[in-house]
Amino acid sequence: MSADQLPSWHESSAKQSIVDFVGAVTDQGSPDFVPSTERVAVFDNDGTLWTEQPMYTQLAFALDRAAELGRPTSLEELQAGGMAALVELISLTHADVTTEEFDAACRTWLASARHPRFARPYPQTVYQPMLELLDLLDHHGFSCWIFSGGGTDFMRTWAGEAYGLPPHRVIGSVGETEFRTGENGPELVKGAKIDVINDGPLKPSSIHRHIGQRPVLAAGNTDGDLAMLQWTAGSPHRTLELVVRHTDGEREYAYDRDPVLGSGNGQVLAAAAEHRWTVIDMAADWAVVHPPVS
Amino acid sequence: MSADQLPSWHESSAKQSIVDFVGAVTDQGSPDFVPSTERVAVFDNDGTLWTEQPMYTQLAFALDRAAELGRPTSLEELQAGGMAALVELISLTHADVTTEEFDAACRTWLASARHPRFARPYPQTVYQPMLELLDLLDHHGFSCWIFSGGGTDFMRTWAGEAYGLPPHRVIGSVGETEFRTGENGPELVKGAKIDVINDGPLKPSSIHRHIGQRPVLAAGNTDGDLAMLQWTAGSPHRTLELVVRHTDGEREYAYDRDPVLGSGNGQVLAAAAEHRWTVIDMAADWAVVHPPVS
Repeated sequence: MSADQLPSWHESSAKQSIVDFVGAVTDQGSPDFVPSTERVAVFDNDGTLWTEQPMYTQLAFALDRAAELGRPTSLEELQAGGMAALVELISLTHADVTTEEFDAACRTWLASARHPRFARPYPQTVYQPMLELLDLLDHHGFSCWIFSGGGTDFMRTWAGEAYGLPPHRVIGSVGETEFRTGENGPELVKGAKIDVINDGPLKPSSIHRHIGQRPVLAAGNTDGDLAMLQWTAGSPHRTLELVVRHTDGEREYAYDRDPVLGSGNGQVLAAAAEHRWTVIDMAADWAVVHPPVS
Repeated sequence: MSADQLPSWHESSAKQSIVDFVGAVTDQGSPDFVPSTERVAVFDNDGTLWTEQPMYTQLAFALDRAAELGRPTSLEELQAGGMAALVELISLTHADVTTEEFDAACRTWLASARHPRFARPYPQTVYQPMLELLDLLDHHGFSCWIFSGGGTDFMRTWAGEAYGLPPHRVIGSVGETEFRTGENGPELVKGAKIDVINDGPLKPSSIHRHIGQRPVLAAGNTDGDLAMLQWTAGSPHRTLELVVRHTDGEREYAYDRDPVLGSGNGQVLAAAAEHRWTVIDMAADWAVVHPPVS
């Protein structure tokens, strides 16, 4: 395998662990060989594949949409209200619309919204090294899936194109939808009830439901990804676990705890140390963070 | 397109509607052309892809397993108890086991159980003409998915092999699973709560959740498939709707209403007549019903 397939990665142990793993599981002569039908790789999204600061992009969308709907709220109110306030905001801004209307609203917002620090469309805040990793895995017969706490419908409006994945491989939190026949024929209406908050121990359940196979590679960045990483590590095959650590205040952000929602990485870093999972040190391991602005 | 790809279909209007549709949507010069990434086809399972009489196969499994667990029940008790009794039986026989244990229990049962009339393993009660259709669609760039009221975990133990589908394309009813770390490491334990009964208007919701694209082909056989067929018919693309009708008491069964659970096909046949969907008359349209015993 040519190392050139990961040009935005420095020649460090993180890159080497990826190259070694992909080489071993795709080599028919290796005891670690995994048939291509079982090469399943799962990725968290926010903070793992794209920038999640100064706030989750979907939260920025929800705040803008709440204001547009005449029900503005602030980040401070949200933080004071905790998870209940967040769920209320999501319900307000993501419900009582058809799936097609919601899709259109997301695309309209994404077309004009810009990241406050990087001054580029949010889909261009994806991590160039992770795009190269997705591409490398795809070329080696892996099927890559996203399992995120973000909303499935929101993600599918941009993630497919950004990551080169079909919509069925982009899975997140899911609200109920109601089938009805409206003026424009049959449609699905998004409801206020959230069926699955796709985080923590629910990630392995979602993986089981949506894929039905145990992954051999998992990548995450917070304790909400711990169960997904553990579930992957328990596979009978050789596996690779990746933990992205935000160490780069100059080119991106440096933090171990999300300032808005409070999610941290203490447990996942402890597990990484115990089980020798690969910690990706953004400042040390990545030659480039974001792709050139297109 | 060679008509030989459907050798178990008689040269009737049902076969012609399939051949015409596949020809049109895969012909780049046709106004009905659909790009391969949007060629999504969805199939009900019981009674559409395999025999569902004298009772759903999964129900036969559940009755055998309930007896094995020391809690035998009869079909008569089930019918008297309605949906509540059915849910109780499913909970008893499908819960409090890890997903791996349940998988093993299904495979063990399937290896020895035989269909009472056809005296063959249940996975060999699939319909040969529908296998040919799945194959034809696959060769023309379609992705075929199953959306069944049956349990996802039960179906995935045999349907992938029988139909040539990866597990993520086999979707049914889903119970909760709990992630925990047991003696053998991380595992998922099946619980008693059913999250989704994948029937009726919930089928379009499941399709949206699992695929994120609107199908252009749908096949079903009961009123539980009506919403899925309507959802498909509402696509902006040219679509094909197939309704399998059980008219063949000699080679299979002749019925419009399931004698055990009472599901019928009155609404779906009325919709087929109104919208000129394709009704497959098993006796008239299929030269062969089941594959040769292997």
